[in-house]
Amino acid sequence: MDKELIYQQIAALWTENMPFNQLLGLKITRFNSNESEIRFAWQDKLIGNPLQKILHGGVTASALDLAGGVVAAACIIEQLDEISPDKIQQSLSKLGTIDLRTDFLRPGRGEEFIATARIIRSGSKVAVARMELHNELGDHIAFGTGTYMVG
Amino acid sequence: MDKELIYQQIAALWTENMPFNQLLGLKITRFNSNESEIRFAWQDKLIGNPLQKILHGGVTASALDLAGGVVAAACIIEQLDEISPDKIQQSLSKLGTIDLRTDFLRPGRGEEFIATARIIRSGSKVAVARMELHNELGDHIAFGTGTYMVG
Amino acid sequence: MDKELIYQQIAALWTENMPFNQLLGLKITRFNSNESEIRFAWQDKLIGNPLQKILHGGVTASALDLAGGVVAAACIIEQLDEISPDKIQQSLSKLGTIDLRTDFLRPGRGEEFIATARIIRSGSKVAVARMELHNELGDHIAFGTGTYMVG
Amino acid sequence: MDKELIYQQIAALWTENMPFNQLLGLKITRFNSNESEIRFAWQDKLIGNPLQKILHGGVTASALDLAGGVVAAACIIEQLDEISPDKIQQSLSKLGTIDLRTDFLRPGRGEEFIATARIIRSGSKVAVARMELHNELGDHIAFGTGTYMVG
Repeated sequence: MDKELIYQQIAALWTENMPFNQLLGLKITRFNSNESEIRFAWQDKLIGNPLQKILHGGVTASALDLAGGVVAAACIIEQLDEISPDKIQQSLSKLGTIDLRTDFLRPGRGEEFIATARIIRSGSKVAVARMELHNELGDHIAFGTGTYMVG
Repeated sequence: MDKELIYQQIAALWTENMPFNQLLGLKITRFNSNESEIRFAWQDKLIGNPLQKILHGGVTASALDLAGGVVAAACIIEQLDEISPDKIQQSLSKLGTIDLRTDFLRPGRGEEFIATARIIRSGSKVAVARMELHNELGDHIAFGTGTYMVG
Repeated sequence: MDKELIYQQIAALWTENMPFNQLLGLKITRFNSNESEIRFAWQDKLIGNPLQKILHGGVTASALDLAGGVVAAACIIEQLDEISPDKIQQSLSKLGTIDLRTDFLRPGRGEEFIATARIIRSGSKVAVARMELHNELGDHIAFGTGTYMVG
Repeated sequence: MDKELIYQQIAALWTENMPFNQLLGLKITRFNSNESEIRFAWQDKLIGNPLQKILHGGVTASALDLAGGVVAAACIIEQLDEISPDKIQQSLSKLGTIDLRTDFLRPGRGEEFIATARIIRSGSKVAVARMELHNELGDHIAFGTGTYMVG
């Protein structure tokens, strides 16, 4: 199996079959073992502050965690000796977020939001990623750092 | 105005009028300037991992951020010289999460979840809170630490 | 070999043979796989702010990291099937801090400082500890959270 | 007074008169309100692991905290209406680290270490900086994120 194809299947699965990602409208638009991109559109239900009409901090954290998580998933797949659907599913079952730090820089305003992640530490057991959230105008809304169990 | 009454009004407002809190079913069940409690029930739409049927990490982060945020709000109100609806609204408009760390300890399984927060640093500009998430059986699911702008 | 004896030997080794712990005067006064205690005395060379005469934030972080690290070391030893000096040394060589968060609550003033740690997540690969720093009067100076590689 | 000159004086003061920075050999080699650079040479007394001969995690945290702290100090000075020695000293007395996260990426080996910081959030009360630690070969040893009280 081709790795690029595997990544496409995981992106489709996580975008369409993870209830909470669907609820928030989070779409995985790109990912490999180095970096990822998640996009989602503004929706009134994501409001965390009715006076200011800005994203709830939990929406920001959710998008950053997903962006880091998919890069960590790709790190797991890169390390497989043998690539089969069973082996992939078994390996991905080990994936989990250990800790996540979110730094909120600006109010979460915009029409579309783009979360990106890149890996900063990659090992057989633990991966660490740094994430960013911008809106469609390029305003930098948040930073994140996530530590993931990968083995 | 009585502070206990103000806290009840804020709890009602944030539970019923914040779209994202409603979407997740987060209810503020108790809060003052020292500690708070948020409760929410399991719902399938909160699932972050379809194989394991556990809460999305972003749900956990959202509940912890709200728990810390309401304690920080109470810290703001405690510091007011004069208590009027206008003054309260104006002061609360300064409230914001600066950063949030979530430590995931166990898979998010359960029928009901309880997030609690207590203040560990309280000042005129910044407050810091530590949070915990348990399920109805007392299983400890996550820890959090949040830094909030309060003035 | 008795585990209590092993802990005593590690405490002696890390207190006396780790140059930076000696430089700061950090002493491991108690530890097992659940909790630990580190003590150190005020010294002028630990000052981080000459006007205010308070501990440098890096001293606080160093003490908290050591407190968490020794609990993580005990977690490693608890999981060994076979206990021999070689096996212990080999296993401890895997120990490393992945990330550390320090929350500074009050200025670091006092005559003696006590850092304590307790484990909040313990696994075969990663352990997470929460730490606190107090002075001899019981003033709470800092909180910490550390994620450690243990396997 | 010229701001560049003020920065030079602060760099000299913090390098030469802060006991703990001197103990570790931390030198402020560049800073303004956007970015900073701290350098220090390997010394055996900075060892945190006698078997592996690598920096103690607390040394890394100390260097990152200083790098972020000096950028935060420059943020304070940038916001002054009036620049006088008294006013500068009074304003800088408000500077303090609220929280610091350190992510350890690689063992701390090298002959010289370079910590850099850049501001990611700048306000009248709180500033947030991201930091990095490299050695003289460009190996990336650690990341940091610090939240500072500035007003």
